[in-house]
Amino acid sequence: MLSEFDLIQHYFAHHSPADSHLVLGVGDDCALIQPTAGMQTAISTDMLVSGRHFFPDADPRMLGHKCLAVNLSDLAAMGARPMGFSLALALPEANADWLYSFSQGLLALADQHQCRLIGGDTTKGPLNICITVFGEIPPGQALRRDAACVGDDIWVSGTLGDARLALAGYWQELKLDADIHQQAALRMHMPTPRVALGLSLRGIAHAALDISDGLTGDLGHILKRSGVGASLWVDALPAGPMLQQQDPELRRRFCLTGGDDYELCFTASADQREQVLAAAQASQTPVTRIGQIEAQPGLRLFDAQQQPLQLHLQSFDHFSTP
Amino acid sequence: MLSEFDLIQHYFAHHSPADSHLVLGVGDDCALIQPTAGMQTAISTDMLVSGRHFFPDADPRMLGHKCLAVNLSDLAAMGARPMGFSLALALPEANADWLYSFSQGLLALADQHQCRLIGGDTTKGPLNICITVFGEIPPGQALRRDAACVGDDIWVSGTLGDARLALAGYWQELKLDADIHQQAALRMHMPTPRVALGLSLRGIAHAALDISDGLTGDLGHILKRSGVGASLWVDALPAGPMLQQQDPELRRRFCLTGGDDYELCFTASADQREQVLAAAQASQTPVTRIGQIEAQPGLRLFDAQQQPLQLHLQSFDHFSTP
Repeated sequence: MLSEFDLIQHYFAHHSPADSHLVLGVGDDCALIQPTAGMQTAISTDMLVSGRHFFPDADPRMLGHKCLAVNLSDLAAMGARPMGFSLALALPEANADWLYSFSQGLLALADQHQCRLIGGDTTKGPLNICITVFGEIPPGQALRRDAACVGDDIWVSGTLGDARLALAGYWQELKLDADIHQQAALRMHMPTPRVALGLSLRGIAHAALDISDGLTGDLGHILKRSGVGASLWVDALPAGPMLQQQDPELRRRFCLTGGDDYELCFTASADQREQVLAAAQASQTPVTRIGQIEAQPGLRLFDAQQQPLQLHLQSFDHFSTP
Repeated sequence: MLSEFDLIQHYFAHHSPADSHLVLGVGDDCALIQPTAGMQTAISTDMLVSGRHFFPDADPRMLGHKCLAVNLSDLAAMGARPMGFSLALALPEANADWLYSFSQGLLALADQHQCRLIGGDTTKGPLNICITVFGEIPPGQALRRDAACVGDDIWVSGTLGDARLALAGYWQELKLDADIHQQAALRMHMPTPRVALGLSLRGIAHAALDISDGLTGDLGHILKRSGVGASLWVDALPAGPMLQQQDPELRRRFCLTGGDDYELCFTASADQREQVLAAAQASQTPVTRIGQIEAQPGLRLFDAQQQPLQLHLQSFDHFSTP
């Protein structure tokens, strides 16, 4: 059986192109990085647990991608440029095929974002993957959750709800055409972190976050921390291509509450619309204007006819859902 | 039941004295820290799994202490000054008593080292605690594993083997007096990270690491990465006060291979002995000279009469031990 050191060396001691940050990588007590002078370091941690965030039999290559993607998504939501990440991994056994595929998925995405694996830990235990990611951002330019202003437009990147649709297929809430399920599932298993958009929005957007638990719940964090309210135009929400083929009620519900999309939701002054669209174009990421920040607390939903909608919505929470 | 956000807020949104590094803490997509100009950032991650690194019924206060201590120990081994840490926590349930005690143990040690909790993640799952710790160090001053030189003295801090003795009691390898077992167990559950010693050794020590898996195995990493060998004076090893009361063979074996002591093992030029002792005094940490770095590869063990010892030793490895 592979030893702990063999494991790290064999699958994860990955030789990316030299970069200016990493001074000392995998293999010592600590990794050392040299931050760019004057920049702030953005740090985020996500822990993914088998049976909770992914199926126990999840494809390991897609799983490797997803574990890093959700962390890069947090950097994107802050407008930070990725530098590196550490990986802690609890595995029931050291399965060579699984590890090979997992590392391939993980490191391919890391390469794509010049985000270097700088260190980590492996241990035996129920499958658990914990990544901590590091990025850089100039002081004062972070897209914080508490920065939404009354009058701001609310925007969302890409499309919503296909990941939730896939889950409905797995849970057999819905009977889905196999093709549709498969394509929606790709969205669930291989999310695209909107790093380029986050960088382009520096100096333009006010507040931002990534949608991991559902739009209404996550937008609620911006509203609460910024001390504002909002109106959302529910029928303007950009439903994913698979969800668009479903009935309108389902479309609304999954767009509003479906998690796992990892799109950015952000606010920007109404007089910055052109700049937002230019940032979207520069980063090749579609964006849609979906509502407005208002002084009145709470979240109000409207349909295409400007009529108020009463929907029973619940965001995802790890300790209040079964 | 407490929600994920309630959990973090209630137990971990801890208000340490203001510090110069933290720009934005718990509650956004990322934490933001402002590194000191010109300093390097040292980063280490440790994942602790229930039933592997601690007993499922471990006292939560001591567990909180230990989880951070093993990470601070990695900073100590590098000579880095702690800045902050992130905490990812998978819990089978949100038990308020457990969380209260765990956070108390964790944050008490954090305060002691001015190491701020800057963010994290909580999720439902088999108990798993992953901490990533951040420290600072001036360029070129890190105590690296690859820096041992032929002729260096080998030193160890504190005492060795009491944590292993406690484990022998739990495993019923040995029948221990209840008092002795209890005191040895404190050493196992409440390790002291040698942060002050690590800082004092900057510019004095060459190579260093912390002993988590046993002296011979861990020293082996220094030897391998530095391309050197060593002689160890086995009877000079500073056995823990409880282990000192056991028979000499057991004392040797547990000093050489016992894990979980979290003492520093370091090398320094023989003409720096006075400086090493002054650093030990300044940091109020006892140190003992236990051997010498040599050009000949491999590790040679000698008894008090300078006679070679042949001992069957094995270091701990998560994937090659049951």
